[in-house]
Parts: sequence; structure tokens; C-alpha cells
Amino acid sequence: DAVNIDKVLEDVADDEWLSHSRLMHTATGVREVSKQLQRRPIRRAVRNIMIVTRARDNKLVYLTRELAQWLLATPRYGRDVGINVYVDAKLRTSKRFDAPGLLERDSRFQDMLKYWTPDLCWTSPEKFDLVLTLGGDGTVLFTSWLFQRVVPPILSFALGSLGFLTNFEFDKYKDHLDRIMGDGGMRVNLRMRFTCTVWRVDRSPGAERGAVEEGEQFEVLNELVIDRGPSPYVSNLELYGDNELLTVVQADGCIFSTPTGSTAYSLSAGGSLIHPSIPAILLTPICPHTLSFRPMVLSDTLALRIAVPAASRSTAYCSFDGKGRIELKQGDYVTLEASQYPFPTVMRGGNEWVESVQRALRWNVRGAVQKGW
Amino acid sequence: DAVNIDKVLEDVADDEWLSHSRLMHTATGVREVSKQLQRRPIRRAVRNIMIVTRARDNKLVYLTRELAQWLLATPRYGRDVGINVYVDAKLRTSKRFDAPGLLERDSRFQDMLKYWTPDLCWTSPEKFDLVLTLGGDGTVLFTSWLFQRVVPPILSFALGSLGFLTNFEFDKYKDHLDRIMGDGGMRVNLRMRFTCTVWRVDRSPGAERGAVEEGEQFEVLNELVIDRGPSPYVSNLELYGDNELLTVVQADGCIFSTPTGSTAYSLSAGGSLIHPSIPAILLTPICPHTLSFRPMVLSDTLALRIAVPAASRSTAYCSFDGKGRIELKQGDYVTLEASQYPFPTVMRGGNEWVESVQRALRWNVRGAVQKGW
Amino acid sequence: DAVNIDKVLEDVADDEWLSHSRLMHTATGVREVSKQLQRRPIRRAVRNIMIVTRARDNKLVYLTRELAQWLLATPRYGRDVGINVYVDAKLRTSKRFDAPGLLERDSRFQDMLKYWTPDLCWTSPEKFDLVLTLGGDGTVLFTSWLFQRVVPPILSFALGSLGFLTNFEFDKYKDHLDRIMGDGGMRVNLRMRFTCTVWRVDRSPGAERGAVEEGEQFEVLNELVIDRGPSPYVSNLELYGDNELLTVVQADGCIFSTPTGSTAYSLSAGGSLIHPSIPAILLTPICPHTLSFRPMVLSDTLALRIAVPAASRSTAYCSFDGKGRIELKQGDYVTLEASQYPFPTVMRGGNEWVESVQRALRWNVRGAVQKGW
Amino acid sequence: DAVNIDKVLEDVADDEWLSHSRLMHTATGVREVSKQLQRRPIRRAVRNIMIVTRARDNKLVYLTRELAQWLLATPRYGRDVGINVYVDAKLRTSKRFDAPGLLERDSRFQDMLKYWTPDLCWTSPEKFDLVLTLGGDGTVLFTSWLFQRVVPPILSFALGSLGFLTNFEFDKYKDHLDRIMGDGGMRVNLRMRFTCTVWRVDRSPGAERGAVEEGEQFEVLNELVIDRGPSPYVSNLELYGDNELLTVVQADGCIFSTPTGSTAYSLSAGGSLIHPSIPAILLTPICPHTLSFRPMVLSDTLALRIAVPAASRSTAYCSFDGKGRIELKQGDYVTLEASQYPFPTVMRGGNEWVESVQRALRWNVRGAVQKGW
Repeated sequence: DAVNIDKVLEDVADDEWLSHSRLMHTATGVREVSKQLQRRPIRRAVRNIMIVTRARDNKLVYLTRELAQWLLATPRYGRDVGINVYVDAKLRTSKRFDAPGLLERDSRFQDMLKYWTPDLCWTSPEKFDLVLTLGGDGTVLFTSWLFQRVVPPILSFALGSLGFLTNFEFDKYKDHLDRIMGDGGMRVNLRMRFTCTVWRVDRSPGAERGAVEEGEQFEVLNELVIDRGPSPYVSNLELYGDNELLTVVQADGCIFSTPTGSTAYSLSAGGSLIHPSIPAILLTPICPHTLSFRPMVLSDTLALRIAVPAASRSTAYCSFDGKGRIELKQGDYVTLEASQYPFPTVMRGGNEWVESVQRALRWNVRGAVQKGW
Repeated sequence: DAVNIDKVLEDVADDEWLSHSRLMHTATGVREVSKQLQRRPIRRAVRNIMIVTRARDNKLVYLTRELAQWLLATPRYGRDVGINVYVDAKLRTSKRFDAPGLLERDSRFQDMLKYWTPDLCWTSPEKFDLVLTLGGDGTVLFTSWLFQRVVPPILSFALGSLGFLTNFEFDKYKDHLDRIMGDGGMRVNLRMRFTCTVWRVDRSPGAERGAVEEGEQFEVLNELVIDRGPSPYVSNLELYGDNELLTVVQADGCIFSTPTGSTAYSLSAGGSLIHPSIPAILLTPICPHTLSFRPMVLSDTLALRIAVPAASRSTAYCSFDGKGRIELKQGDYVTLEASQYPFPTVMRGGNEWVESVQRALRWNVRGAVQKGW
Repeated sequence: DAVNIDKVLEDVADDEWLSHSRLMHTATGVREVSKQLQRRPIRRAVRNIMIVTRARDNKLVYLTRELAQWLLATPRYGRDVGINVYVDAKLRTSKRFDAPGLLERDSRFQDMLKYWTPDLCWTSPEKFDLVLTLGGDGTVLFTSWLFQRVVPPILSFALGSLGFLTNFEFDKYKDHLDRIMGDGGMRVNLRMRFTCTVWRVDRSPGAERGAVEEGEQFEVLNELVIDRGPSPYVSNLELYGDNELLTVVQADGCIFSTPTGSTAYSLSAGGSLIHPSIPAILLTPICPHTLSFRPMVLSDTLALRIAVPAASRSTAYCSFDGKGRIELKQGDYVTLEASQYPFPTVMRGGNEWVESVQRALRWNVRGAVQKGW
Repeated sequence: DAVNIDKVLEDVADDEWLSHSRLMHTATGVREVSKQLQRRPIRRAVRNIMIVTRARDNKLVYLTRELAQWLLATPRYGRDVGINVYVDAKLRTSKRFDAPGLLERDSRFQDMLKYWTPDLCWTSPEKFDLVLTLGGDGTVLFTSWLFQRVVPPILSFALGSLGFLTNFEFDKYKDHLDRIMGDGGMRVNLRMRFTCTVWRVDRSPGAERGAVEEGEQFEVLNELVIDRGPSPYVSNLELYGDNELLTVVQADGCIFSTPTGSTAYSLSAGGSLIHPSIPAILLTPICPHTLSFRPMVLSDTLALRIAVPAASRSTAYCSFDGKGRIELKQGDYVTLEASQYPFPTVMRGGNEWVESVQRALRWNVRGAVQKGW
């Protein structure tokens, strides 16, 4: 009944030689399918909701409690009670969260209030129908880090002014959630993540020349940064695409950013703003030695490999969404490719991306040059 | 038998509510189809070839003659003669091209040597199985201008050093063409073009308020530029996406560039380099008044409208791939969307885009800052 | 008694060969003199004050009246009446300014209220001991245009928020003026201006080859811009310093900015911010063709000449502080040098330049990139 | 007889109140003196010459020997022998330099060939009438590091292509040196250096709150860099000018560059090119958080202080001409001011600065954007 994409792929594979006109037609069609998909709402019963916040922030803990209580108590989906709520296991004994006080209100809450741990997110992400974040853009990044494989839809509340990623006002949470869990359904933005893997030269005695060992692996939502770390020397980084050497970058470092990350560090380093729907990898050099080396937007179908040359004067350091800080020695490398686990964020509607950029970067509010006469 | 994209679209349309997992699956699938398509070679008999060059450049005319003669004479596709060649009608009486001398060589050439006119390109683009350009990047732009609707595959020769768009060395033309017209087939890059349409306020007496009239329409391969022209005042341009106001740009002007155009004017104005396979519209402001206004990469599914505000202090000027220079008065606007007529360029293979950028921008050759100790 | 700089110059001229240590000593000394001068207050009786404003702006006209009346009436310098005030001759018959009403208040005002015209500013700038501007940065530019030779000290009021050049709040005008005309005196910032002269090829019949004729001359406070105007082609501009060819600039245009102008158009085009005390000419290219062509800060001792090459494909246009728009044909040129008529602006004190930049560009207020976690 | 700058300063000091016209006159005069000084040649007998090179580079050692021999042997200043030559003490026992072989040629060389050590440069810089460097720009930086106080004139040879600082071709060394030590004399460019001093919070028990201790001091020719080092967090640096807080910079770091250093690291970070004759401090932020934070050119009369805020999340690291790497903890700071010990480089003549920039950055050679039609 529904779209059988596997069948389409099979068809493409069979048709060994495409004629020019068929190629044109198919390409246009694929683009159209992609466009339609972006506009599709998901309507599903939300039975289990997870709340992520900064458990050390007292104010946020009180708001989490308020939100949890409302979710537990508000009748939904034909029942006279609300839905299951998972909060951070760190709140289990928090006086401010006061779980006992919450459970006293309705005996049924006993089975409905649950606790999540990083481990649960790793092993059973499908347990959550929706994740709410309460905090700033950093809390959204943290949520991406929690879900290293499949990610449930994420809806992010801002406390004060809206941020780049926090697009729902907390003080209207009832309206927003009633609509999304009701007939409105939710439209999600499948934000690309990168799967980054560290590979190290096998330096054990007797190892084969050129042998490497797989190291850490991370899903990043914003960016992979490889830089010179504490070294005073400029980095020389070899950049390979689909196993061919593309170029050698001489710079303080390189930022490999998703469209989502284009409003973060990459922007400081001179990168362009990229709409999250664009399937692209943004390479922004940090203080490049060659002045004509400009930020590049590469296809997300490229498998990238970034290596510290064997003869490099110094080592390099990499970090993942601002965390990690792993040293890459001579010959070590990192691979990066578009992840099969995108990060679905619930959309508010309208041109929210341009609005968020405009608001956060204060366009038209000023920061402008001197006016003439 | 082959890919039935219409059917896929129909399926997507039927399936009113997508579940989260189906959405993820379909989106991944669409991306995969798109990736496969890019790698598909076209194998087709090339019976009619068109050559575009600068007819005023004597050297190029001699080379065109050499190329035409070889194409006419070299046996191909099981016949003992070559293929039909269309040259610029301006060469019909050129002494340097010396058509009579060419026809003397073989009586069959009489029916095989033909002449193209801009009119023929407009009415019957399907007459040409392949177009060869001889010259620089400018000749490729001119070819795009000739084909305002469907475009045949374009193979571009460079005379001296390769350019951004001219990726085949002319001095190896025999090898290249034998391979492409033989078993190798050709892989093409469907370069996005924009369809730009000028709309003017109906200023005739008795016209309805707000009525507009459709004006010129152009397909552009590089960019649409809207700037202040000779006016000393900064432009205020209203930018609409899918009919919603995205922002007002205060700048000397705006460049709306395709990925292909990202190596042209947009790069001078600070834009990023964008791989031609990426479905994106690059908006690069020229000397923006607001310092945090950065180049933006927008989705090619967006229908853009750029308007001179009714109350603007000055008018604006637009140009299309560097040509045109049309004035937009208060209230007039231009619409821009991804064209249904992409510009297919024959690929040479490998990572030719990064190579072309690297070569033309002299990365690693220098243009670099002072070295330390 | 006072500094005899002519004598110093003579000494330097006599001493044909400087030893290394004397050179070092003298250079350090010159810098010290320069530093001291910047900190020197001027104390002088202000007998005649001129007010510049936008005579079309009703609100400003009322404020001008208020200010004029206060200046006329407030006893100063041992007399029981105020000082002479020159207002724009356009206000002579303005109902809003209501000169008759003003004169009624005190018969002595009859001789004290006077009117300035551009002609008077040109012929007798020494008539004014101080000029007050009421408006925005544009009004200050206009004042610079009024005084094409010697410029009296300029004190600029801002109506709302302070601008780059308008550094005194109007609502505290009494305090400010009492202090400056009293014991405080005024410290002025001698802002460099450029003397720009247009030279045109003598195209009259029988003219000698290479003969040129002097054309318009302007003093500019912000910048000279030379650009391609309505032409679609990039400009090729020959840049000469002290009559030697420095380079040929291929770009949309060039901005030659004073330090004062570094916060205006040049900043939009990517130039640096330059403190007004620095004796420098800032050359900022507009969309340069060569990516490694960066803004350059040149010595103000350089005599620049910018020429449209004789063989240029197109002409160029120049403008002076945003006004003018003069066409330069093939072979024509503009000369630019540091003017002997600087523009003295009254300083408010403190680090007002950094403050003005910080305020206007909204540093730390935001316009910032996404925060991490 | 000669310029008595001390007297001028005294005069300026005496003249408590400057009139407006005297101020204008004096300021113009000071500028003129400064201009004349730049054009002054120094003619002095060069009796003692020092050669700096990389003692580990065999090729350079051979060339040093050749140069030393020529200087020792070529009759000069009325004597039938050359001048004293100081070479690196590391060459004393070098087989490649072969001092014994050199001394065999003329017994007088025994007293003329001498050896320098870093210590000698520190204690007796006046021993050297001229310093020759053989190598690249790095060797010139090293020479600046050797002379932390008074610096003799420096003449820098390039081996291959000329660099930003190495402006004499080695293969014409005889012509260059004969001219400079002869009637031509030498014109020198007094390149500004910065005196940078590290100050640390006194963390000893019983120390007064806010007490600081003076730490390392360096003269830098290119730049002081303060950055986040290995920390993943953005730096917050407090910037004080003449003891007033100018702004807080949120960025990866800050570069404080001399005009000489404007072609080095600062250029990579987006700074402008600054002519070495301009008395300025260039502040270039590295990846600033606030997008409108642009490079600034400050007056060299400003005494700067850059502090890590007491409450900062992380520490900062500073380096001096690319060396040093000193950690600044919370509360520590660095002061920077124009040094009283400039770095005099011998000029070759003409517009060598623009030429060096043009050559090294490959203007007009290319690195340029795609051409239109």
C-alpha cells in the first residue's frame, strides 16, 4: 500500500542504462518525493513521554515537576488520566522535584511516573514516543548525545527568548502539547547527524605497517572539530572523499558541520547559514593559511576521512559537539558520514528557521554600519 | 520495467499519515535513489552534435573546423562515415571556417554539416544529442542562455588551463569523444538552473491596485543579481519564501546563486563553495548593512520572490548570469525557483569539482600568509 | 615661545645624514609630540556659534529654536547676554522657527541672530568659533561638505541613541555647552579628510595625447568610492602611489576610507575598524575578483591616483561621501591625498570611539552564534 | 645643530592652552617631520657585521661561509681588507663552515672573524653595525628574539623567492652590500615591536588580595596571541586601554598584531594588511562569538592590558611571535605597548611592501573566481 522505496531502488538498479530523458524525469521525481515528505505530519498516540532538563538548575526542576504533573493528570486518548512520563533518574530523590508529593495526588501515577537513565536511552530508545527538552540549545545537544542510535521526536521548549533549536515557548506548553498530541499531529524536521569514528594506527609491537584500530564513535548534531589543540603549529590535515585525496588543509583546524551546526561554531569561523533540510556537509576552515580557501558545502553522500599525515610536525585534537577532545597522532584519522540516525525535531510551523536566525542574529535590530546622509 | 516515480508520488500522496518509522525509512530511501542516479551513465548513440564557440575568435574558428571535420569523417556506429555536425550559422560564410573546402572532402558531408541558430535551439533542442563548447566558462554560460527550455548534454572543452566549467582538455578531444560516444557512455551532472520571472506593477490608467503583469523570463545557470545599480542608496529588498516574508535585506544588493554559480560572483561577495549536486539556493548579500547578515543556503524547494518595497527610496536593477540589467521599480518583483530544465554537463570523472576549485583558486600553490619560524 | 614646528622641519632638512641612533631618537620624539597634541584642550571664547540641522524636519526645527534661544539669552563671558547664533538661512521665514517671536524677547537679539548660507561657510569659515549639529551622522557629513576648506570645531548632538559621530546627548545640551565654553575647554579630534580631485583626458580636437584637465574637487570625511556603476563588468582600476603603479584592482569597486569612514560603507565591504587618531588610508575592495585581495591600510603620506585604464572595457563611477556620482571614462583618474583641512570634532572624553563602536554594533548585546552546552 | 626634539616637547608642554589654529598647524607639522624622517638615509661606516642563519641547514652554512669570506676579504673604507664578521658560535666547530680553512687565507682574518652568542646580542647589541639574515621570514623573527632591547639595522636575504620580510635576493648580495656600505647608505624602516609583559596573581599564602607579580617579558615583532589553548570553551578576555575597560572579547582568542605581523597569523584570521609605517596595533579576534566584532586598528599610544576574568570558566594561553605558550590563570593578565625598541629593517626601495604583498598573495596571478561571459 504505502511507498515501497526498496522496490524503487531495485528498479533503478535493474535499468542499467538510463536514457537522458528518463534520467531527467526520475531526478525531478525524486526531488518531488523528498519535498512531499518534508510536509508530512506524523499522527501517533503519544503514550510515553521523556523530559530532559538540567537537573542541577533549581528553577528548571520546578518547571519539570509542573510539566510532569500536567502530563500525568490531563486525560488523553479516551482515558480519564494522562500519559506515562519519564524524568531524569537524578530527580528520583530530589527534594525540589518531590516525587512522593506528586505520587500522593493520584495512586495511578505510581505506575506512570518513571525514570530514564542514559543506559535506557541507549538500549531502548523506542520506549519514548516523544522527548521534551527544557533549557537552552545545549540541552538539545545533550539529548542528541543520549540517543546515539534511533532518536524519538524531540520537542524543545525555551524558557526565555527562543533559541536556534528551542522553538516552543514554555509558557504556552499546554496549547502546544494539546495540539501536537491531538488532531494536529506533528511535523518533524529530520536533522542530519554525522557518524564520526576515530581510527588509530596500531602501535603495538609486531603490528602490520598501516594497520589501524577502530576507536570511539559518536553521533554529532552540530559539528566535528579537528584542530591543533595546544600545539603552536598550524595543522596539516589530509581530506579524503570516497577514499580519494581531495585536498590538504593548512589551518588552525577544520569544522565539519551539519546544517544544524551552521548556526554554531562554524558561523564564528565564517561559514554560511544552511537550512536544515539541505543534505550537506559544511567544511569551514579555521584561520586557513591559504587565503582563497573558503568554506565548502559538500554532498552528504560523500564518505569523508580526515587524517593527520604520517610526517606531520604535530598532532591534532578532535571534539564532537564540543565534547571529547581526543588526540589524533600521526597517521590516525577520523571518518565522517551522514548518519542513518537523524535527529527528528518537532517543527513549530512557518519559516521558523529564518525567523530563529533573524531573531538570534539581530538582523534589522541593528549591529549595523554607520548610515549616510 | 523502469522506475515509476509517478507511482511513488501517488503512493506518498495516498498514505495520509506517515508513522515516524515509515517517514524515516522513506526519507533514507529517497536519498539513496538520488545517490544512485548521480552515478548512472547514459549510453546513447550520438547522431547529431552541436558545436558552440565564439565565432569572432579566429583561433577558435580554426579549431572548430578541425573538430567538425574529424566528427564528420570518423566512422562511427557501424557506418563508414561520421555523424552530423551543427555549427554556428555565423560560420556559414566565414572564410576561416571555409565550409566549401570542408564539403569538397566527401560528398556525403553535404547533408551532414548543418547550421544552428538561436531560434533552432529554442524550438528544437531535442535535435542535438550532445553539445560541445569550445572556449571558456563564458561560452558555457552562453550555451545555457541558448537553451531556455530542455538542454541536451553539454561537454565543455578548455583551450588552455581547465576552468570551473570547462573540464575536458581540447588537445585530447579524440580520446574523450571516442570514449563517451563508445562503450563508456557519459555520466552527467544535472546542474540546477533557476527560472526567474520579472513581474511589474500595472501602471496603466485604470489598473487595479496591486495588479502586476508578467515580464521577462530567464533560465540562469550561475546567478540572479539584484542590486542598487547606479543609485547611491543602499537597496531594501523584501525577500519572500513560499509567499511569506522571510526578511528585508539592506545591502548594495543580493546574489541568488546556484551551486554552479557559487564559484562565480557569489564567491567574490563572500559566499561559500557549494558542490553542484546539492539542491540549494545560495543567497549572498553584497555589502550588507547589518554585519551579522551572512550568506544563506536555502532549500531548492522554496519559491522565492524578491520585491522592491512600494515605499522604497530608490529602484533596483536585476541581471541574469551577468546579462539583462532590467530595472525594477517600486512594487515590482522577481520570482525565482529551481527550474524544471536543469543543465546537464558531462562529467570527466573523479572528484573533478574539488579539483577544479583547488586548481582555479590556487590552493596549496600559495596566496598564503607569512610563515612563522 | 610656542612650538616652532617650521624650525624643526628646517633642522631635519639640514641634517643631511642621520645616524642610526639619532633617527631612532627623533622618530620616538615625533611620536611623543603627536601623542601630547591629542591630549591638549583648546580653551577659547566662543563668540559665534553656528547650528546645522535638517531644515525640513519639523521636530529638529523646534529644537534648533530652543537651542538658539538658550544660546542667545544665557549670559556668558562677563556679559549679561549670550552669544551670536547663526542658523540656516532656510529658517529665516520658517513659521516653525518663528524668528520674529524670538527677536521679540530681547531687542539685542536683533544683532545676535544671524543666518548662514553655504556660500558664507565657503568664504568665511573663520566667522564660526564652534558649530553644533543636530541630527544624525548624516548631518555631520553634510557639515563636512559645507566646509570645503578650514573647518571650525564641530560638536554633534544626537537626538535619540548616540551614533558613531554624534557623541553628545541633546537632552543634556546645557551641561555640555556650559562646560565646553567654560573652564573645561574642548579637546578636539582632528579627523583626517581626503582631498579628492577628478582629472579628465582632454578630448577636445587637437589636444595633446595624454593631456588631462582638472575637474571637480571634494573634501571627504568618510570615503571616496569608485565602482562599476550600472556596468555589468567588473572594474579594472589602476592604483598608483606616489606615481608608481602599486597594483591593478579587479573588483566591483574600491572604497578609499578615512579612519572616520571605517565605520561606514567600508565596514559593510569587510574593512577593519580604525581608530580616528591613526594617520591612514583604508583601501577596501568591493567583491574583489582575486580572493586573496584583502583590505589594506596605507600610509596617509601616500599620494594616491586611481585611474580607469585607457583600454578598459567599461567606465567607472566615483562618489564622495555618498554624493557626486561622477563618471570616469577611459584614461580619466582621481587623485586622493590626506587633506590639509582636517575635520575637528569635539570629544566627549573617555574611550568614546570604542564605546560608540560597541554600542552601534551591539557587541555583547548579541547578534551571536548558537551557544554550546 | 640637529633636531632637538626634547626642546619641541618642552615647548608643547609649556604652551598650556593651544589655540585652535596653532593646534592645527602643529599637528600638520608633526606629520610632516614624521614623513621626512621615513625618507632619510643613514650613512655610516659598517665596521662590524653579524650574520644570522639556521646553523642546521647545510646549504645555508655554505652560503654563510661564502658571504663571510667576501666580507672579510673585500677592501672597504680605505683599508686593503674587509670588515669584522660575527657568525653564530654554533659554527665555530662546524666542518661545513670550516673556520680554519677560512683563517688560512689571510692572517688578518684571525682577529676579524668573531662569534656571536644570544648572550652577546643581549648585552652588547651596539657591537653590530649591521645584521644580515640568511633564510626565510622565520629567521628574521628569530633575530628579533635575539635582540630584546636595542636592535641594529637588519638586512634580510632570501634564498629563493622573496618573502614578506626577506627583501634582498641573495644572488645579488655583492651589489646590494656594496651600495649600502658605500655612498648609497641605507634607508631603514623602523618596524614597531610590542613590549609584552605577563603579570600573575600572587597566589602565595598571605598575599594581599589583588596583588600581582611581574612575570616574563618579550619583545614581539609579529604578534601576541591569547587563545583558549586546549580548552573547549570560548575565551572571555577583558580588554583594557589606558586602564579603562574597553570591551570583553568572547572568541577562540585574540591576536594583537603589529603592522609587520599583519601579513602573518592575523591575515588568516581575517585582519587587514597594514603598511609598516603606520603606528598602530591591530586587534584581530579569532572566531568571535559576536558576528559584528570586527578587526580593529588601535592607536599605538594606547597601553593595553588583556586579562582573564577572575570568574572565568577556563584559563587562557599566550604566545609571542608563535613561541612561549604561557598559561594565564584566572586574574592573570598581559600588558602590551609599543616598544621603545623598534626593529629597523633595511629597505630595498620602491613600494616594496605592496610588491611583497602582491607577490606573496598572488594577486593578479589568480586564485580568482569564475569569469563571466
